[in-house]
Amino acid sequence: MIRTHKAGELRKEHAGQQVTLAGWVARRRDHGGVVFIDLRDASGSAQVVFREEDHAHDLRAEYCVKVIGEVRVRPEGNANPELPTGEIEVVATRVEVLSESAPLPFPIEGNTGVSEEARLKYRYLDIRRQQVGNAMRVRSKATFLANQVMDELGFVYVETPTLTRSTPEGARDFLVPVRLQPGNWYALPQSPQLFKQLLQVAGLERYYQLAKCYRDEDLRADRQPEFTQIDIEMSFVDQEDVIAVGEALIGRVWKEILGYEIPTPLPRMTYADAMARYGSDKPDLRFGQELVDVTEYFKDTTFRVFQADYVGAVVMPGGASQTRKELDGWQDWAKARGARGLAYVLVQEDGTLGGPVAKNLSQQEQDGLAAFVKAAPGDAIFFAAGARNSSRDLLGAARLEIGRRCDLVDQSLWAFLWVVDAPMFEEDGEGGWTAVHHPFTGPKPEYAADFQDKPGEALAYAYDMVCNGMEIGGGSIRIHRAEMQQRVFDVLGISKEEAESKFGFLLDAFQYGPPPHGGIAYGWDRICMLLAGGESIRDVIAFPKTASGFDPLTAAPTAITAEQRKEAGVDAKPKE
Amino acid sequence: MIRTHKAGELRKEHAGQQVTLAGWVARRRDHGGVVFIDLRDASGSAQVVFREEDHAHDLRAEYCVKVIGEVRVRPEGNANPELPTGEIEVVATRVEVLSESAPLPFPIEGNTGVSEEARLKYRYLDIRRQQVGNAMRVRSKATFLANQVMDELGFVYVETPTLTRSTPEGARDFLVPVRLQPGNWYALPQSPQLFKQLLQVAGLERYYQLAKCYRDEDLRADRQPEFTQIDIEMSFVDQEDVIAVGEALIGRVWKEILGYEIPTPLPRMTYADAMARYGSDKPDLRFGQELVDVTEYFKDTTFRVFQADYVGAVVMPGGASQTRKELDGWQDWAKARGARGLAYVLVQEDGTLGGPVAKNLSQQEQDGLAAFVKAAPGDAIFFAAGARNSSRDLLGAARLEIGRRCDLVDQSLWAFLWVVDAPMFEEDGEGGWTAVHHPFTGPKPEYAADFQDKPGEALAYAYDMVCNGMEIGGGSIRIHRAEMQQRVFDVLGISKEEAESKFGFLLDAFQYGPPPHGGIAYGWDRICMLLAGGESIRDVIAFPKTASGFDPLTAAPTAITAEQRKEAGVDAKPKE
Repeated sequence: MIRTHKAGELRKEHAGQQVTLAGWVARRRDHGGVVFIDLRDASGSAQVVFREEDHAHDLRAEYCVKVIGEVRVRPEGNANPELPTGEIEVVATRVEVLSESAPLPFPIEGNTGVSEEARLKYRYLDIRRQQVGNAMRVRSKATFLANQVMDELGFVYVETPTLTRSTPEGARDFLVPVRLQPGNWYALPQSPQLFKQLLQVAGLERYYQLAKCYRDEDLRADRQPEFTQIDIEMSFVDQEDVIAVGEALIGRVWKEILGYEIPTPLPRMTYADAMARYGSDKPDLRFGQELVDVTEYFKDTTFRVFQADYVGAVVMPGGASQTRKELDGWQDWAKARGARGLAYVLVQEDGTLGGPVAKNLSQQEQDGLAAFVKAAPGDAIFFAAGARNSSRDLLGAARLEIGRRCDLVDQSLWAFLWVVDAPMFEEDGEGGWTAVHHPFTGPKPEYAADFQDKPGEALAYAYDMVCNGMEIGGGSIRIHRAEMQQRVFDVLGISKEEAESKFGFLLDAFQYGPPPHGGIAYGWDRICMLLAGGESIRDVIAFPKTASGFDPLTAAPTAITAEQRKEAGVDAKPKE
Repeated sequence: MIRTHKAGELRKEHAGQQVTLAGWVARRRDHGGVVFIDLRDASGSAQVVFREEDHAHDLRAEYCVKVIGEVRVRPEGNANPELPTGEIEVVATRVEVLSESAPLPFPIEGNTGVSEEARLKYRYLDIRRQQVGNAMRVRSKATFLANQVMDELGFVYVETPTLTRSTPEGARDFLVPVRLQPGNWYALPQSPQLFKQLLQVAGLERYYQLAKCYRDEDLRADRQPEFTQIDIEMSFVDQEDVIAVGEALIGRVWKEILGYEIPTPLPRMTYADAMARYGSDKPDLRFGQELVDVTEYFKDTTFRVFQADYVGAVVMPGGASQTRKELDGWQDWAKARGARGLAYVLVQEDGTLGGPVAKNLSQQEQDGLAAFVKAAPGDAIFFAAGARNSSRDLLGAARLEIGRRCDLVDQSLWAFLWVVDAPMFEEDGEGGWTAVHHPFTGPKPEYAADFQDKPGEALAYAYDMVCNGMEIGGGSIRIHRAEMQQRVFDVLGISKEEAESKFGFLLDAFQYGPPPHGGIAYGWDRICMLLAGGESIRDVIAFPKTASGFDPLTAAPTAITAEQRKEAGVDAKPKE
């Protein structure tokens, strides 16, 4: 090593020692003939004193330097209790510039706001900033802890292929031309789902992997074309076993990194409850404002809008004092989400109801409403009426918006839960059914025999881990019998040909004594984001891409040359 | 869990306990009314006894079953000391078939030879075979140990992008069309080289990753289009630091998995020595038969063939008794390697020399030769004469072939070493130079100032770890000064434009105080193969591909449809 000590680890005990440090010039202060420099390395920073100006003459911000000097206790009154190394300083006797730095595009020290574009283009400088570098270290630590837990629990780490089979139906697959087989293409996997199930047929019993997954889709909000999941699959298990592993994993990581002991077992909520009470399959339990079903309450109403399959309400505390503009804003907000608007009443301080909807309600309906939905004087009550699912969606979103606008969310809380008993199928809007999870998800045992007869009622043996309103893991007990798998395909309208093309090798494997099995996948980027206190998964990805899949650092993707096209066999016709 | 106990963990102490097992029917033996079945799960197997034929009536090989029964000590004389569970058996009271198995394409039990094609097509059955499944477990354990060592040494695990920049010069890149930016393509990385160096500029100081790498090249012998390396990079280090980390890593893995304590520090050999003594930059030190330089010995020879820049010899013990056919076979062997032949003399039992070459040598040359090359009566001496490098290559290959044919290699040995001081450059045969490692490899300090003046003499600050004749790791101290990097590019004839296109973002980063850094990458597939006692890296890859990049299991790669082409933007023209 070029250095003898790490800057951030120097303490009073080192006083009198000759040390060699290596790192970056972080801050510089000149005081008449004496120059103070904060020397930063990965461990932290230490103050270096240059008695003579000429030693430090050339040292500018982010020069990489080696410094030889003697550690001494700082003079009385000069200690900095906020810094771990604040009691000492290093009196430099020699300095060597290891490399110079051009003027920086943005400062490394301090919390100056910098555009994301600049941060990503100069990511190697961005990561030098303490918070960004720390996020990388948190992710690394979390990854190691995950490996440790899975090892302790007897899981076998298996790397599954990332150059795999493209299927005509696999929309959003990234495709890869194969030079050695011109005209043929691999696909990058959206998940190791089929392989992890094959590994159960193979008898490994407990599989896990830190798996890179790929999806060529419009990058909404906080997605990346490549992402990482902790992928888990187990044999001879039921839902309880997979849940126990997940709680061990998440529990360890939160405890070791944040010092937070997650109370286990985590609460569980059925999908039906989550939708009814929170209008979401990933409810944020850090605050209340549960939806209230007022369908029954308005069952005899003469107000046409509320003569609907479902009428629900959510209360906004203090919402009655919103300006007309704010209330109109809610209408725009609802329209942007595809709704026609957001009906509301305002509970006046005297308990009477205001707002345009109120006058359409009978006196009796008006009188009991606030109490029924637990609204207080000064609150607003928002309504959605119509089809149950879309109305709950809207109210669920309104609830989250209320939480934000009214600052109801205690940011220090961790609200974990399992959402269980999701439906197996949902209507696809064209008279058919789609799988809520994926087509390998098994039914709960009580629906095993006849889910095909009432697809809308069958519940899946599936479970999602939710934290603070985000889904951070999802899995299920799988189907392992070919006969049952066929019934699911029948409900989904997947033909034998399509099944054969997409999953033929899995169905083949299921002929040879497949064990009962199930698993889960955790969204590792999102979990690390929560652990690092980030606001986006980009905060915990070393070299992320923008929403269009562009990397400002390397300028990927790029056009390719005619020669590359030819060499890669992009335009070749496959041999029969 | 469906089971209460693992089959392989049952012991005498469990006698009298009621247990539920779950696993596969491995072996079945019928003995007049009593049926014995070996029930196998991931932990091992246990003998299950069915007293009545009808319970076990339907159980065929590889059925997946659940068995309830009582553990008992096997009757006197029936214990099987070769089996960990050999002292007990489980008397079944109930059995449930969890899933049936169709007739198998090959047996799971026993060591019957099976074609590799069948093994890969039914990989999920192949992995059920003990040796294959164990190889997966060894790899998993090795991976965890590697994580543990790197964590202990303070390394930060960082996932670098796998959808990255394609460059016109990047032959053998896999390309990926990007739907969101039609006409533009990502490339899959051949290694994280540029990113790991950027992470040093970013100040992380100690980076590692279990990194998936891709190369679209002809799959020679034992290559895969995707492969895994343990990728390491460190700041403020010299060669000794990187070597120490490597020895800690390899030492831990060999010790924990094989119980073998690798003597450290590993021996080191210069590249020049390795080439001179073994004709290889990855010498197999498990046996002798070093090359002997006889250029000087033959300096006055009249034999035209030996009037060459270099003449070398290697001895084949007992080789004088080879038949004419065998000796001709060596000529064919040499021709297949592109040589004109392999000159030889045979040392007769009386010490005189036989073979066609002998008569061309002077009496004096003949008399001293055996002693000079340390050949004994009965040995053969092979020669190569001509250009130094190609002759040594040939003799090095002959040496390995001699090792195989004469069974000189002690398979129980582990012969590790570092090969250091490789040349920076070698002639490209067209009057220019290519990098022996890669263009970021730094010179040894003594060549730093003037390597450009004598490129053929400059030694690189590079080190390869070799085990049993295989390169298992390779790395170097990198260049971190733009000025020096430019001199290397100049030697290599890389234009400013080409450098900008290929590595522009790294060169940009080097403007901002890059630290001195270096690293290494270990070929993880190969290391796991050695640990698992495999003969091919396919033995330690769950779902490997054949030499043409084909996966017999999923039938990847496949043709794609016109719609997929369109959707993926394969034929789109990029926007300017």
